Amino acid sequence: MLKAAVPEPLPRALTDELVELVGEDGVITDPSRLLVYESDALTAYRYLPRAIVFPATTEQAAGVLSALTSHGVAFVPRGAGTGLSGGALAVDGSVLVGTARMDRILELDPVGRLARVQAGVVNADLTAAARPHGLHYAPDPSSQSACTLGGNVAENAGGPHCLKYGVTARWVTGLTLVLPDGRVTELGGWGKEPPGFDLVGVVVGSEGCFGLVTEIEVRLLPTPAAVRTLLAIFEDVERAVAAVTDIIGSGLLPAALEIIDGETIWAVEASVFAAGIPVDAGAALVIEFDGTDAGLDSEAQRAEDYCLAAGARDVRRAGDDAEREALWKGRKKAFGAMGRIAPDLLVQDATVPRSKLPAVLHRIIEIGHEHGLRLANTFHAGDGNLHPKILFDRRDPEQVARVERASEEIMRVCVAAGGTITGEHGVGLDKRDYMTLVCSPVELDLMAGVKAVFDPRGLCNPGKVLPPPPETRG
Amino acid sequence: MLKAAVPEPLPRALTDELVELVGEDGVITDPSRLLVYESDALTAYRYLPRAIVFPATTEQAAGVLSALTSHGVAFVPRGAGTGLSGGALAVDGSVLVGTARMDRILELDPVGRLARVQAGVVNADLTAAARPHGLHYAPDPSSQSACTLGGNVAENAGGPHCLKYGVTARWVTGLTLVLPDGRVTELGGWGKEPPGFDLVGVVVGSEGCFGLVTEIEVRLLPTPAAVRTLLAIFEDVERAVAAVTDIIGSGLLPAALEIIDGETIWAVEASVFAAGIPVDAGAALVIEFDGTDAGLDSEAQRAEDYCLAAGARDVRRAGDDAEREALWKGRKKAFGAMGRIAPDLLVQDATVPRSKLPAVLHRIIEIGHEHGLRLANTFHAGDGNLHPKILFDRRDPEQVARVERASEEIMRVCVAAGGTITGEHGVGLDKRDYMTLVCSPVELDLMAGVKAVFDPRGLCNPGKVLPPPPETRG
Repeated sequence: MLKAAVPEPLPRALTDELVELVGEDGVITDPSRLLVYESDALTAYRYLPRAIVFPATTEQAAGVLSALTSHGVAFVPRGAGTGLSGGALAVDGSVLVGTARMDRILELDPVGRLARVQAGVVNADLTAAARPHGLHYAPDPSSQSACTLGGNVAENAGGPHCLKYGVTARWVTGLTLVLPDGRVTELGGWGKEPPGFDLVGVVVGSEGCFGLVTEIEVRLLPTPAAVRTLLAIFEDVERAVAAVTDIIGSGLLPAALEIIDGETIWAVEASVFAAGIPVDAGAALVIEFDGTDAGLDSEAQRAEDYCLAAGARDVRRAGDDAEREALWKGRKKAFGAMGRIAPDLLVQDATVPRSKLPAVLHRIIEIGHEHGLRLANTFHAGDGNLHPKILFDRRDPEQVARVERASEEIMRVCVAAGGTITGEHGVGLDKRDYMTLVCSPVELDLMAGVKAVFDPRGLCNPGKVLPPPPETRG
Repeated sequence: MLKAAVPEPLPRALTDELVELVGEDGVITDPSRLLVYESDALTAYRYLPRAIVFPATTEQAAGVLSALTSHGVAFVPRGAGTGLSGGALAVDGSVLVGTARMDRILELDPVGRLARVQAGVVNADLTAAARPHGLHYAPDPSSQSACTLGGNVAENAGGPHCLKYGVTARWVTGLTLVLPDGRVTELGGWGKEPPGFDLVGVVVGSEGCFGLVTEIEVRLLPTPAAVRTLLAIFEDVERAVAAVTDIIGSGLLPAALEIIDGETIWAVEASVFAAGIPVDAGAALVIEFDGTDAGLDSEAQRAEDYCLAAGARDVRRAGDDAEREALWKGRKKAFGAMGRIAPDLLVQDATVPRSKLPAVLHRIIEIGHEHGLRLANTFHAGDGNLHPKILFDRRDPEQVARVERASEEIMRVCVAAGGTITGEHGVGLDKRDYMTLVCSPVELDLMAGVKAVFDPRGLCNPGKVLPPPPETRG
């Protein structure tokens, strides 16, 4: 976890060129004003950018990237900065290119169920705009009230309801991409599977390393006619996972299956977000079904029966929207509640086969104890996607070192269990060193080759995703 | 539509090397035995391969590709040869590498709902193997009783039920890829979103141009507990499309929405496949819902109401499996019925915005008349994916020329309506010249660049997907 010094200022000629393109108020170079962009939601790393530039259109973005590239200055696309893998950090004196001014919904076609938005549109704002038409945008990352569609595309973001609906890649049908050299291209478009090789597919999830996505076309989905939400309380995580396995094994397809562990319950109940979960419980499971009203009660009943058979102490069912919100509270406020206990919070992200969840979880809690760290877990149980959360204080370098060691051990445990190093947060800066745990040298070569097709000079989000070449590795 | 002469035989040393790798019976070089591989389901083109080689394992495949590449011999991956865009044809004296011996289901994990198969496993065989576990493989191309998973991955295949469940890309979680130089790499794996850039995503749909996929991991889906099938008869296609628009606009999500037009109805009813649809009908719409039993009757009733409101002459509902099969018959046998009328059938594939379907269809029928060609249409109406079928006799070069002109005009009409040149059959050989209608030069450059990362010598499925460079275009 490095902290870089104040980087060199931009060459005057480049700053002038950028101001010419986007206006005086679209370029920030004052280090004190840049401090707010020094980090992202992964607070462990800090890098002061040389500048941040805010283009408002694809044309302006093309001009900005072309100017930066012709000066040989590296740049990093940045949405709302809610990422958890350090992907939007301005390492090594990069310039940030922010999408905050590209916040317009360009088109919303209720009949075709498609929307075209600028990359800086906030995820929840798109759903709000679609709601009057009975539609919504399916991927719902926990940060959806702040995170942008551009960031979602970069990270191929998920969310609790992606168990049923799939992650971002499934919903994106077209992109406008500005290449690092300033060339602009449309990829895919207007709801169609793109012909030829699937460049939309490889740009989604490329973590801002292939250029700047300025416009995004997505499919919208009808808002479900009805919802049923349950909260089941268990003595321990094993029983909660057993219930999840039985529910999925039965052929039921809930929209969400979310577990919080005892440590998380304790933190939530000790906070202002208290959700009424007994503090001695070992796990709480949120189950949600959506669809046509007629079928949902029998689905909810079956899920409840599986929970009780797996040993649930209590199963609560929401009778209305207010109760539904209450049942979700423990899950949704877990992050905030933990964040209030310590100055810093590392939210990790890994995936393991569902059947390995209890064993992996046990080991993760042990790792926390071994390193003397406070640690809690929430997880998208249906997908086997774990989010261990480690509390720490970044002002204590010794503690930070323990967090780093614990974090690496957690990754190794997940990989050893047949899992992988990320579920939905991306590799970014934080996990590039772990890529060799899960990708072969040939696979890494191919990834580097594909990146070089889009970014031959290596100026776009350098130092992210791909591990440093072997000779430079620590 | 070219017909190549008998190609040069392979160098003796290479043939010996191939026989050494896969055995005497794994290499066919006799032109008379190669005739059966001269074409695919797009019967318009004929290219005799120099040989066909059948590796049984990834190791054998790696040896075969390495041998071919070191001799500078181009090769073409080939599954069951059911493709409709000429993607598996051995142009310019290529060698075919067939997957017929790689037909084993390697692992089926009912709890994790995953399967790992060799590339030559037939689509329907995977579903048959999964059925005892209450699972199935979702994508269901019309050729599913013959086509292979490897071919499905190459073409990113769809099928009637992809309206609800999505195409192949959504279900593939991992691949074993043999690169043209013989290197082997795993991409993704065991149900996880792959970390780093999404190479699985870009290999799916790469039409066999990036190497030979030998193993495939896919997600399986619970078999729906219940199904409701309806057949609605209309005077004309406009009314059928209006019903589809209303059904989708209402928020209902049918598993399938399939239309056949009057010409197709006529052909089916005149054939041994007669499905009991009035021959004077202008369109028939198959609607299917699946899911939990409780909700389905109300969904089916609402769909029926929309059909009647849109002017349906008659709506039939299946009471059991036999009746369900009868209602599907007109759609499922359309291909076969048309095929019996003429020696050759060109099944085209394009996508247009759903709202443009009636106008585009009118124009397509006119194009048929203008060129004196018999033409009928079936379409995945929910997706706006059209399949115009042109009857012809390839022995008549003048007729073949008319088919080619009509085919190109149809593509231009679809693109002008905001559509694209393929829905699910790929670009292959047939449509590479149309790529410039829908892809910008920058996009084509990027595609060529990505292909070169996997296949720097250009020996893997040459001449497919990408248009020839401008200076050589006709």
